[in-house]
Amino acid sequence: MAKTAGILIIGSEVLSGKVVDQNSPYLVGELRALGVDVQRITTIPDDAEIIAQDVRTFAEQYDLVFTTGGVGPTHDDVTIAAVAQAFGCGVVRHPLLEDVLRRHYGEGITAAQLRMAEMPEGGRLVGEGDLSFPVVAVRNVYIFPGIPEIVRRKFERIREQFREQPFILRRVFLCCDEGQITDDLHAVLDRFPDLQLGSYPILNNPEHSVILTLESKSPEYVEHALRFLLDRLPPPSIVRIE
Amino acid sequence: MAKTAGILIIGSEVLSGKVVDQNSPYLVGELRALGVDVQRITTIPDDAEIIAQDVRTFAEQYDLVFTTGGVGPTHDDVTIAAVAQAFGCGVVRHPLLEDVLRRHYGEGITAAQLRMAEMPEGGRLVGEGDLSFPVVAVRNVYIFPGIPEIVRRKFERIREQFREQPFILRRVFLCCDEGQITDDLHAVLDRFPDLQLGSYPILNNPEHSVILTLESKSPEYVEHALRFLLDRLPPPSIVRIE
Repeated sequence: MAKTAGILIIGSEVLSGKVVDQNSPYLVGELRALGVDVQRITTIPDDAEIIAQDVRTFAEQYDLVFTTGGVGPTHDDVTIAAVAQAFGCGVVRHPLLEDVLRRHYGEGITAAQLRMAEMPEGGRLVGEGDLSFPVVAVRNVYIFPGIPEIVRRKFERIREQFREQPFILRRVFLCCDEGQITDDLHAVLDRFPDLQLGSYPILNNPEHSVILTLESKSPEYVEHALRFLLDRLPPPSIVRIE
Repeated sequence: MAKTAGILIIGSEVLSGKVVDQNSPYLVGELRALGVDVQRITTIPDDAEIIAQDVRTFAEQYDLVFTTGGVGPTHDDVTIAAVAQAFGCGVVRHPLLEDVLRRHYGEGITAAQLRMAEMPEGGRLVGEGDLSFPVVAVRNVYIFPGIPEIVRRKFERIREQFREQPFILRRVFLCCDEGQITDDLHAVLDRFPDLQLGSYPILNNPEHSVILTLESKSPEYVEHALRFLLDRLPPPSIVRIE
């Protein structure tokens, strides 16, 4: 079984249409490439109660949870406190983070800026040594800020610890109507029930009108399913295979 | 109170990183412009049990629910059956939809293609007359397909029925550190508790480093809050106001 993950985008700015979320497409692409099965992406407002409840549910349901957003010095940055609330623990200031902040802001550091040294009690730093400001994690929850450039920079440094056996993906490009091949797709799934089989209609493409995707962690399983499928599909409908 | 909405993106292809969701950014932008308050966006796999459970929860929690994806003739198109399951009702074939499909596909129409004439019992067609293939709705749930071009075409024809009093948005561009203005932001919220106030750090911009957003459905409320805020902020930090 692949490790599962849930992604929580904490962002009133996304829900109010002011910002398009770039973090979930990035994380889902990275995690899939690492062999992790992302099962849910949810965007919620900067509301501590809602965040706490979703973090609790996600942490129970998925092996890994990634949050982005709500980390910073202002009133709408409530993620750390909400994650602490999710696990019924308090918030503590981490000396290493405090040190980084004091060096960055100097003498004039404000109480608000020092809030960024806080983490849920029982939390840990991930990427220490590689990152000047490490990622805060609690149990299976990894807390990222909202700014896409920083999410990328931080995730790149810690990504290897999430690597699993990869998914194998094969794609079949067809020129036909989806409704003509449903029996073939059902036959494939009857024979290969563990296959992840997708069928996607494509509009306004002169070459192909459907893309089928076949995925599994077993290369043999995918190849057998692909051969079984190709033997059934009407040969003129097959444009190409990748 | 603004009408609330939840958006459910049904798409294993999004969760597996093969497709970037374009539907939720589109819908959230449209709904916000219509004065609707989107409170949650969730992406889930093409799994009838999961869809049914989320549709039920969303339909209870939000005034309006929009789903995209999982509508079509193939094995992974389970949204209609799942929405029916969410409300404990069956699936029926709608004569108008059947008629449209039979005219489109002609004599050779398959049983799979006819599945696209199905809707949950007690459902209704929205946009009849304006759309050759209307939107299926059940109670407060509006069911859209996954293809972004079709989502846009359909939503444009029915959007006016969702129009509410608009949100008023003012933005203040600042050159400062967020941590220096947190007291000012708290003071604004103490005085204007119903204001939607966002604070967003901006990296690598030579002109401004923070954008504040002030929103409400009352133009006067936003203007008063804006004036109160501007009187408190250090004048040299203010780059411009929109």
